[in-house]
Amino acid sequence: MNLKKLVGHEAAKLVNDGDVVGLGTGSTTHYFIEKLGDRMKKEEIKIMGIPTSYQSFFLARKSGIPLTTLEEHDLDLAVDGADEVDPHLNLIKGGGAAHTLEKIVDASADKFVVVVDESKMVEKLGVFPVPVEVIPQALRVVEEQVKKMRGVPKLRMAQRKDGPVITDNGNLVVDIEFGLIEQPGELEIRLNSIPGVVENGIFTEMADKVIVGTAKGVDVLNRI
Amino acid sequence: MNLKKLVGHEAAKLVNDGDVVGLGTGSTTHYFIEKLGDRMKKEEIKIMGIPTSYQSFFLARKSGIPLTTLEEHDLDLAVDGADEVDPHLNLIKGGGAAHTLEKIVDASADKFVVVVDESKMVEKLGVFPVPVEVIPQALRVVEEQVKKMRGVPKLRMAQRKDGPVITDNGNLVVDIEFGLIEQPGELEIRLNSIPGVVENGIFTEMADKVIVGTAKGVDVLNRI
Repeated sequence: MNLKKLVGHEAAKLVNDGDVVGLGTGSTTHYFIEKLGDRMKKEEIKIMGIPTSYQSFFLARKSGIPLTTLEEHDLDLAVDGADEVDPHLNLIKGGGAAHTLEKIVDASADKFVVVVDESKMVEKLGVFPVPVEVIPQALRVVEEQVKKMRGVPKLRMAQRKDGPVITDNGNLVVDIEFGLIEQPGELEIRLNSIPGVVENGIFTEMADKVIVGTAKGVDVLNRI
Repeated sequence: MNLKKLVGHEAAKLVNDGDVVGLGTGSTTHYFIEKLGDRMKKEEIKIMGIPTSYQSFFLARKSGIPLTTLEEHDLDLAVDGADEVDPHLNLIKGGGAAHTLEKIVDASADKFVVVVDESKMVEKLGVFPVPVEVIPQALRVVEEQVKKMRGVPKLRMAQRKDGPVITDNGNLVVDIEFGLIEQPGELEIRLNSIPGVVENGIFTEMADKVIVGTAKGVDVLNRI
């Protein structure tokens, strides 16, 4: 059973006719976006999407989902993946280097639903390093601030291009090892307070619902 | 024998005290930049570098080469790699997605020297697809123009980030199969004439010298 497909399709059921929907980035939301396109054709419902990356932009176009922007519309629902989810529904995102626009879009939605397979569920965040998007000219000074916070920063290098990964926004990504994170909300704020940091991949107090694909089926966690 | 190292070190011999040097991108120029840093320390010569990418920027910093910009200096010499070289010293570059700034820097140098191993030498350009840097908003219209020129365009997808490769300039890369290219100079001009194309990876009438690493040693080709 493809757990990513399972939860991606499950999330597509949450979309109502007329909704403006945030389209997350990654291999799990891929299935969500495709299924949403299917539903639009079969059920003749009207939906508009707001993509969170070039990837979801191209896939939405291919799936026949009309697109709009945050300039024009508020969002009813955003669906996105995650790299780690803790029991309080705090997240680490940014493995796909799209977390800045994802956070903007996900935070603008009335309801933010996360889709993951069970491998992403952890007791505490931090096995996955925290991705931080950094203005290129600020790389050295950001890394120095991070080291003072006992983080171990590592510039993410690209494949299929020479040098570092460049984000859709033209910036760099630094992956930071902090070990297990006791206070993710505090760390999220401290990282964003470093001049040169555009956004970090810790998402606290944002997810309303997490749909988890397990070998036994779908598990749904709701934020209280 | 490491042929890339052989030619990278050979090119470092061409640099004179006081030169402003263009620092190419890729695995071969990597050895050139490192060796240049070595020479500066051992021989106490003064050199300034102008990098062609974040990759060569970071490596030059690590190698102790002081950096400057095209705004401030003309270049005496530029050293760069290539993905293909034909007998007229025409090149295809851009496998590392850095060809726009490389072309700017290489074209600004009094002397442009290419370093390659023998696997890059071809009778005709075109086995390697032509990399073209494209403004994101223009992707569809550029691809349509390319197809009219009988090219087969393919958006270069990233690894270690979701979606397409983003260049150091924040643009996309489209790799175009044309088959063997009979008139590279003409194709270079036609591609750059498409609105939305920033720069393409065909370099004609630019290389003054190509240093080729072969199993038998170093071969030097000079443009007549």
